Formats: sequence, structure tokens, C-alpha cells
Amino acid sequence: MTTSIAIERVETSKITAVDFDNLPFGSVYSDHMLTCDFVNGKWQAPKIEPFAPISLAPSAKIFHYGQSIFEGMKAYKDADNNIMLFRPLDNCKRLNKSAQRLVIPEIPEEIFMDGLKALLEVDSDWIPTNDGSSLYIRPFMFASGNGFHASPADAYKFIICTAPSGAYFGGKVKVLIEEKYARAANGGVGYAKAGGNYAAQFYPTQLAIEKGFNQVIWTDDNTHQFIEEAGAMNIFVRINDTLITSPTSDRILDGITRKSILQIAEDNGIETEVRKISVGEVVEAAKNGSLKEMFGAGTAAVISPIAGFGHKEDEFELPVLEKPYATILKKMITDIQTNKAEDPYGWRVFV
Amino acid sequence: MTTSIAIERVETSKITAVDFDNLPFGSVYSDHMLTCDFVNGKWQAPKIEPFAPISLAPSAKIFHYGQSIFEGMKAYKDADNNIMLFRPLDNCKRLNKSAQRLVIPEIPEEIFMDGLKALLEVDSDWIPTNDGSSLYIRPFMFASGNGFHASPADAYKFIICTAPSGAYFGGKVKVLIEEKYARAANGGVGYAKAGGNYAAQFYPTQLAIEKGFNQVIWTDDNTHQFIEEAGAMNIFVRINDTLITSPTSDRILDGITRKSILQIAEDNGIETEVRKISVGEVVEAAKNGSLKEMFGAGTAAVISPIAGFGHKEDEFELPVLEKPYATILKKMITDIQTNKAEDPYGWRVFV
Repeated sequence: MTTSIAIERVETSKITAVDFDNLPFGSVYSDHMLTCDFVNGKWQAPKIEPFAPISLAPSAKIFHYGQSIFEGMKAYKDADNNIMLFRPLDNCKRLNKSAQRLVIPEIPEEIFMDGLKALLEVDSDWIPTNDGSSLYIRPFMFASGNGFHASPADAYKFIICTAPSGAYFGGKVKVLIEEKYARAANGGVGYAKAGGNYAAQFYPTQLAIEKGFNQVIWTDDNTHQFIEEAGAMNIFVRINDTLITSPTSDRILDGITRKSILQIAEDNGIETEVRKISVGEVVEAAKNGSLKEMFGAGTAAVISPIAGFGHKEDEFELPVLEKPYATILKKMITDIQTNKAEDPYGWRVFV
Repeated sequence: MTTSIAIERVETSKITAVDFDNLPFGSVYSDHMLTCDFVNGKWQAPKIEPFAPISLAPSAKIFHYGQSIFEGMKAYKDADNNIMLFRPLDNCKRLNKSAQRLVIPEIPEEIFMDGLKALLEVDSDWIPTNDGSSLYIRPFMFASGNGFHASPADAYKFIICTAPSGAYFGGKVKVLIEEKYARAANGGVGYAKAGGNYAAQFYPTQLAIEKGFNQVIWTDDNTHQFIEEAGAMNIFVRINDTLITSPTSDRILDGITRKSILQIAEDNGIETEVRKISVGEVVEAAKNGSLKEMFGAGTAAVISPIAGFGHKEDEFELPVLEKPYATILKKMITDIQTNKAEDPYGWRVFV
């Protein structure tokens, strides 16, 4: 089934004002957006319209009760102008998993996929072709229904915006292993891409930045003995030649880059382990030299190498390797994403 | 210092369409709102304008990262048309405590207090005088700045809206002691009135409703052995003649109704204890008959009596008392709020 989508085009494109050689991340917005309203108990017809302000009553529940979720995706264009997505159905499925936890009505897969493809066709000129750049895609849903009572809203908006973007992080980051604050509770919403999970990270991250770090490594909220996520990314630790990442849980996001890295690593002879990682083990490995690499993994940065970490009063530097897994795996995954390599997994989806 | 506040009045008031004898809670909005923008690193001049939709770019961070906080307050009018607030400075202070945790710039006390008073004067006709009704006041702040990167915004809005409201809950509620889900993490944002804390409660509450309960009693996320909050309220438990409530922490909101109840109870010869309350103790007390009352406490409902609770597969009914603390304390606190009794504490603030 193909969803019928009305298209209202901009009168004048903003694209000529954009410097594609100097793109920031997620700060320049393409001409159009896809919008779809949930009212009267059902999703209405999606439409493509100019990227423009949204009008909401001050009583809309998004302003009061944090009922919002999002996804992050990227579109690429190859040398032949083919437009490609990476495992987009996984984003749709995860958005709906988040929706369930936040009591937001699930978006039908056809509206998500057909709407996204139609939007990319309308704004195909906005997909950067420069190396390292991509069109960042932001699907999101939020409570537009009204009321000053803490209960699910009766109306929602699903929107997809896009932003031609350069790389997310510049260079290696220094991270601080968190000893006091926490990102997620057992039985909480940590596994969902809920808006509130991100705002909750800002203050501890700010404190880490004041101490000279870039990001926080989140630990469990009860003992702070186990490593869970890196900033807004999943975390990988390489001890000797084994690549280790924490298992997903109700506190840890089931990252699409995370699981793609695990698959590619396994298929290329890198030993992987999915298990709890203790802080003590990482500190010990840093001391005895067996800790070779740490990196974050997520859609925005793909892989974000970590240069060193702080733990209590100590700081540890990671070695500079000639061929780090981070570089090897990042190349493999981005080559698949950008159609520079075979895709044995069927992850690449042409629009 | 008095803040100068520009006032733009509605052309036609909506008040004639409002049935003050049948007010829902928080669903009918007064004619005006106070707004104040934080841009270029500072709060601009506040103004009063008609209650009307807010226009925000789809890239505004409120839609993506849950950077939002709020307060709940009430205004009352006595027989002589005096307008009264209850401990309003405490709400301002708590809003700024929430702001700090969510990395939202604090709102100056003068803007909050002078803005609120000016708004109540402009919309004084909207303050209900019927018994049990009040003008519910909703101050809130959120990220209006833009960007698809998880970091604090560079612009915020502070708004106060009001809604003439009837009682929040009708009758006694049945609650379920939560065994799986959790509201807050150690080192998280549970003590703040952050939007995301509320959306996270919707799904577990929905499951409880499906089982025939009205609300969830939150327990600690690690052991589920200690009672923390009741729905979106603080919780009180009466065992024999002692009134017990959990201590505030980084997981538990420092409720203004909670601390007012503690003070009034102590001054009226009711023994109080502020200490951890174990689930086992409450279940045991229900079984041996020493559990006399349980109630939620918060601005919206003031005191919300609990008729019974579920724990695992068991259900417990609470006794029906002739003079429950809930009724006595609710009358004492609302009499102070509505100027029907002396206020030895200086909690009542005339506008």
C-alpha cells in the first residue's frame, strides 16, 4: 500500500543560501517537512508542507508533561544520485516502542516509510554529497492535546524534518565516568528515545564539561559500578582484542549503530562480547595496558572515539593505535551506508 | 522593586461562556497569560497578553529533548473579594531548583511574583468563589531555542496561564503499589517538576487502571521495597495515630502541600514521622488493622484520600473512619488558603 501524500511546496527555496562545504550539525533545515496529526482517535492524512513554525495552545501537554519521543536517521546520496537510507524500518519500530512506553499512539509503518521517502524526493537537492556529510533526519512525535492534568493527551503530531549536516563531533572526546548522577531508572524510560531522557543529562554533562571533559559515561543508578551509555550514545570498550558492549535493558537504548557494529565486527573476525562492563574492570585494564579503545556509537556520530576518561580523581589516557577498531568499523559501516561497499545484510534502502 | 509589565487586553472576554458551577480541572483557560522570553543571555520584559497559541519552529528543543519544567499553584477569593495565594515564593524557589537541574535559566523572583500578581489582577473575575473551586495557576518554562543536538537551548519561554477549576479528583482512589516500573532514578530528576517525569508515569498508570486501580504508588527503582510517591502527589500513611511520610530526596518532590500538612499536624497534636516507609510495613499494618489511613498530598487535590491498595495479587481496604486525619487536615489547610481561619504561619499572601 502506498500512502497518498498531499504536497505543498515552498514558493522560494532557501537552498541557495546554504554553504554545503561548511555545514554545522542539525542547525540548517531543509525546505519541507512531513506532518501528520492524530485527532479523534486516528492518524489523519500525512502531508508535506514548507518547514514553518508550529502553532500550539499554551495548554498543549508537550509544554507540561514531556510526552515526546524522537528518532535520528541519515540519508545519503551516492555518485549516481541514488538516495539511500540505513535500516529505516528499525527506526520506525523503535519509535513505536518508545511510543508505547510514553502512551503516544503508534505511527503506522506506511505513513512513516512512505512519508519519509516522499519527503526525501521533494528535498533531494538538500542531501549533501560531500564526504562525511549527510542529510540528518529527525522524525518526532509529541502531545499536542490540551489540559493541565497529568494524563495522556488526546491529540498528537508526527513530524519529520531534515537538516543537511556535517560531522557531529570534531575529534576525540574525553569522558567522565559518572559517580553521582544517573540517566535512567530500573523500570523507567531509559530504553526509549523520550525527550525527558536528554534534558536530564544536561546538568551532569555541564558539570563534566566544567571539569574539562566532553561527555559523561553513565553508570547504573544504584551502584555506579557498571558502565551503561556514553553521553547520548551506546558505548564500546576494547580490552586486548575483544570488543565489549553492555547488553540492552530497560535503561539502555537498543542502538541501531550499536547492533550494526556488533554484526560487522563478528563477521570480520573481531571477537565481541555483550555483557555488563564494570567500572573496576575498565580502570584495571587502563592501568595494566589491556584497555586499547573506548568509543561511543550512535546515528549522529556513527562512531565517536574516546581519547581518555576520568574516574573519581584519576584520569586515564587511551593509547593511540595504528589501526583502531573505531576507524576500521566506522569505515565499514559508512561504506555500506553510502553505497561504497557491498551490503550483505540488506541494511541499505534505496528511495 | 516592582517589575513594569505591559498589558495587552483581549478585545472580548470569554468569561460569559464559562459555567462556574460545573468547572472541570485545568481545562478552561482564562483570558490572559503572562509571557517572558529568555534570549541573548537574559530575561526580557514580561508582558500580559491574550491567551493564544504559541508559535515555535519544529526544531525548537522542547519538541526533542524534554527541557521543560512547571509549577502548580492556586488563587482564591474570599467573601470580601480579596485575592489570595498560598506560599507562592516556595513555588518560585522550587521552579528555580527544577530550572537548575534541567539547565534552564532561573526566572528572577520579581518577574515571577510581580507578573503573577499583575495577571491575577487583570483576570480577577476568573477566580471562582464556589466552595472547593479555585483558580489553578500553571507557571512553566521550556526550551524555545533550536537545534537537533542534545544540549541546552539558547532561548526559553516562561509563561503563566490560569484555569478556573473544580476539584481534581472525585472521591476516594484505589492505588496499586508498583512492583516493576519506576518513576525516578537515584541521581536523576525525580525531585524536579520536569515534564519528562510525568510522561514516564502514564504507561504504568494505564496498566494499573486496566487492573481496576486509579493510581500507582511509586516505590524505589532498585528494590521496590519503599514507598515514595502516590501518582503525581506525595504520600502520607497513618499507622495507629502516627502520620508518616517519606523524606524528600533526589527522587521525591519537596511538596508544598506535604510540608504544610506536616507543620499543621505537628501543631495540632498529631504525631508525625518523616522516614522511609517500607511496603512490608504497610501490608503488615493493613493486615493487623493498625493501618488507619493513606492519602496523597499535592496542590491540585490538596489531600486525596485512598480507599484501598493493591500489592502483588492482594487487595487491601482501608477502614472508613469518623474523623480521618485527611478530612481534618484538608479543612485546616483550605481554611487557611481561603481566609476562613487564622494563618499563624504567614503562608497566605494577599494580591
